[in-house]
Amino acid sequence: MLPFAKVIHVDTRGAVILSEESPETRDSRGIYLPNYIEPVSHIAVDVGGSLAKVVYFTRSPEPPSSPSVAATRGSGTPSNLSTPRSLSPSNDTDNATNLLPVSPTKRTNNGALTPLVLADPHTHSYPGNISDITGLANSSLLRDTILRRTVQHFPGGSLNFERFETDSIDECVQFIQSLIERSAEANGVSIAEMRQGVKIMATGGGAHKFYELFSGTLCVEVRREDEMECLIEGLKFITLIPDEVYYFSDELIQSVSQSGAAAMATAGKVDAQGLLPGSSANGVLERPSPNPPAFAVTFESNPTPQLPCLLVNIGSGVSIIKVDEDGKFERVSGTSLGGGTLWGLLSLLTQATTFDEMLAFSEKGDNATVDMLVGDIYGQDYSRLGLKSTMIASSFGKVFKKGGEKGKFSPEDISRSLLYAVSNNIGQIAYMNAEKYNLERIYFGGCFIRGHAATITTLSYAIRFWSKGTKRALFLRHEGFLGSIGAWLKNIGPEDEDVDVRINIS
Amino acid sequence: MLPFAKVIHVDTRGAVILSEESPETRDSRGIYLPNYIEPVSHIAVDVGGSLAKVVYFTRSPEPPSSPSVAATRGSGTPSNLSTPRSLSPSNDTDNATNLLPVSPTKRTNNGALTPLVLADPHTHSYPGNISDITGLANSSLLRDTILRRTVQHFPGGSLNFERFETDSIDECVQFIQSLIERSAEANGVSIAEMRQGVKIMATGGGAHKFYELFSGTLCVEVRREDEMECLIEGLKFITLIPDEVYYFSDELIQSVSQSGAAAMATAGKVDAQGLLPGSSANGVLERPSPNPPAFAVTFESNPTPQLPCLLVNIGSGVSIIKVDEDGKFERVSGTSLGGGTLWGLLSLLTQATTFDEMLAFSEKGDNATVDMLVGDIYGQDYSRLGLKSTMIASSFGKVFKKGGEKGKFSPEDISRSLLYAVSNNIGQIAYMNAEKYNLERIYFGGCFIRGHAATITTLSYAIRFWSKGTKRALFLRHEGFLGSIGAWLKNIGPEDEDVDVRINIS
Repeated sequence: MLPFAKVIHVDTRGAVILSEESPETRDSRGIYLPNYIEPVSHIAVDVGGSLAKVVYFTRSPEPPSSPSVAATRGSGTPSNLSTPRSLSPSNDTDNATNLLPVSPTKRTNNGALTPLVLADPHTHSYPGNISDITGLANSSLLRDTILRRTVQHFPGGSLNFERFETDSIDECVQFIQSLIERSAEANGVSIAEMRQGVKIMATGGGAHKFYELFSGTLCVEVRREDEMECLIEGLKFITLIPDEVYYFSDELIQSVSQSGAAAMATAGKVDAQGLLPGSSANGVLERPSPNPPAFAVTFESNPTPQLPCLLVNIGSGVSIIKVDEDGKFERVSGTSLGGGTLWGLLSLLTQATTFDEMLAFSEKGDNATVDMLVGDIYGQDYSRLGLKSTMIASSFGKVFKKGGEKGKFSPEDISRSLLYAVSNNIGQIAYMNAEKYNLERIYFGGCFIRGHAATITTLSYAIRFWSKGTKRALFLRHEGFLGSIGAWLKNIGPEDEDVDVRINIS
Repeated sequence: MLPFAKVIHVDTRGAVILSEESPETRDSRGIYLPNYIEPVSHIAVDVGGSLAKVVYFTRSPEPPSSPSVAATRGSGTPSNLSTPRSLSPSNDTDNATNLLPVSPTKRTNNGALTPLVLADPHTHSYPGNISDITGLANSSLLRDTILRRTVQHFPGGSLNFERFETDSIDECVQFIQSLIERSAEANGVSIAEMRQGVKIMATGGGAHKFYELFSGTLCVEVRREDEMECLIEGLKFITLIPDEVYYFSDELIQSVSQSGAAAMATAGKVDAQGLLPGSSANGVLERPSPNPPAFAVTFESNPTPQLPCLLVNIGSGVSIIKVDEDGKFERVSGTSLGGGTLWGLLSLLTQATTFDEMLAFSEKGDNATVDMLVGDIYGQDYSRLGLKSTMIASSFGKVFKKGGEKGKFSPEDISRSLLYAVSNNIGQIAYMNAEKYNLERIYFGGCFIRGHAATITTLSYAIRFWSKGTKRALFLRHEGFLGSIGAWLKNIGPEDEDVDVRINIS
């Protein structure tokens, strides 16, 4: 029965994604928003069953050391996909370059919250150096914006992303505590004053479970926001960021890398490198295997509104949400077979102790030693039903036959099989819902994906296979942060008249 | 490109299911067909990825020691369900009694094949004792039938069911070999003559893989039949057998066990024994838990044609087949998460070495120690979405959180969780297909089910939950034998004019 907050109107013009720091932070790269000024600092936290995701905005104290375009530029040639975790865009990003008023900075943990509310001349002066805005002087629009506000405050800064394990929720609370303390110092105000300029926007199941912990420890206003609403707000926002959305193109790399007529001539044939065609003469859709990659990854550099769509959010469990063109949404389905199932079973079946160890196992595995394939049962294709001999008939179907002695199966093969099983299943249920509600766009979000090539290709293939190539799986760089971005966008201003109170009818 | 065989016209009048011998043979109880004479003995074998299922007909040498009505009679009170494996019917079976021309016999492994073709007076005389038919003399219809044939042959006998592991396919071949040899002796003919009167009808993937093995070893004509066609033929036949089909009624046991108005008055309330209502005031559909059972199991004693329907065949993998009212069918979906997945993973995760050990584990387990429930994430119901706190949010979602040390989780809890996960998932995908094709009846077949109460209740609940109580899960005593029954029904007579040859356009 919580009132809904108004949505922050964030100026996303010129938004760019900052450089990748490491595979670990691939999905938590900062987003530079050159035109945004934050009125009140919102620290958003989305506490799920396994992970707590934090989003907050900091003014950038300095220009970025490397422009983001270096990180997001690329082409669709196979060499770009040789390290599957660092997916690169295949389209030209000149447009993105033109949109950059300043070169954005890398995200830094030392950034501070600098809400406009603290820059009120009746309280104190803004501590930033005025020379910082020199780089923006060429933009008359930005200059006007700045002049309408106080000269002590200027737009521009980074949206920051952090992840914690829910089991270590105290670390998350401590991180926010430090951020508030550091920000008080940077703004030259007391911690009590800083707390007045900060709100915690909490969502996910943990928003309820840990409400007392957050509000009691941080002494800051904590607002609980509906999880599904935040996911959708986050999706609507993030899909407007250039180079955020990506997908496997339907065009084969062999076609992209060759020119015009020659490429068309080879379509439908297996080439010398063994790359298979995407839509062969007999209509079979090939699996968009990452190794070697048969399809180019394409990043959307000129985003357009993406509604209506289906959002498949894969966390510990899976929620499937239908979003209408007007933004109305409904959780229409879900499955308990999600990330928690994969991590849980693999932590029992292998010696791996982290998600990334398990993913590393799966990259080296061969599921055919564990899975019963159509060919294992039939000795051939079951062509009458269009089932190829390489299709998985039964996940883990060979294990019991072989006696099921644990040592006989490698952790790599087990990991690969289970990753396929969970991803295929989610893709199948997602497709059936997209078909039921007649939706063309299927977004996959949630921390399960982790930009992992085998996961992305399996989900892409499942959508291709079940839709016979008519629907497309879409992915997001900030896949795990939809809920926390959505919560961050919830604006509870100090002035009540700004708040559009809607009642949650539950 | 095999021609299709004509379907045997089996007289199912008076068919009864024979007594249960043990839980192990629960799904392989003989079916007594008092009116059937077999022209040519068809030994049908359906070789799947894990199990080979054999069906054959033997004339019953003696009346049954116990009438089947004792096995299939019962009521819907909770006491009948106290041993969940021996599911008893809740309806009155007096009608079945009236249909019995003779008391049927128990299935015996010593039964022999007695094809009519060997009773031809030009070859030899039938070895049976004419006094055997005395019990049938009251039926003028049967007498006429007999008189139109040879007096040395009479109708009546049992359909027999046997299961082998596909890995031990030699045992299956040896069993058929012995059956042929024994039958030659019983009929007083040479093995070569016997082989003339016997056909092997093979289906399933192994029909192709092991074709040479069967034909080479047995020296009998082996015909391969399409797997899906056999499943549907088997379904159409078996659903005509009284007390074969069963389901969880929508009526609560507490209502059934109380009378009229009093029962209605208590509906919607939790009673003293903690039994929950099926459709409570707030519209939440309760799980038809077997322990204690909240719903009665009902057996269909007066079967009617069951088309159109959806058949969900759960073997190592899962096939989902849409069957139209005219018997036309299409495999519309499936999943690789089937019986093979459950047995394979459990053989890695527990010390169990047989299916039944794993099922026994699951009966004693509590999935809440392993699964992440809605309440674990939210601390409460997520009532806005209608998600109860006891719902599974993430299967195995607690395992990684707790560190994933193998010893910390009991094999019972793991087995229960995985059984729920696989069964729920199949139920969900089945429901979505039933909804898509607007089918009311959803049959679950295949060896995965094994008449196991937790499996049946989970599948029933999944269909109830997803369909909001509008569709029903239907089960079959001979759940694993649909394909082999269908293959047995394929009639390739010695006279070619009897064969309706259709070409398989693949």
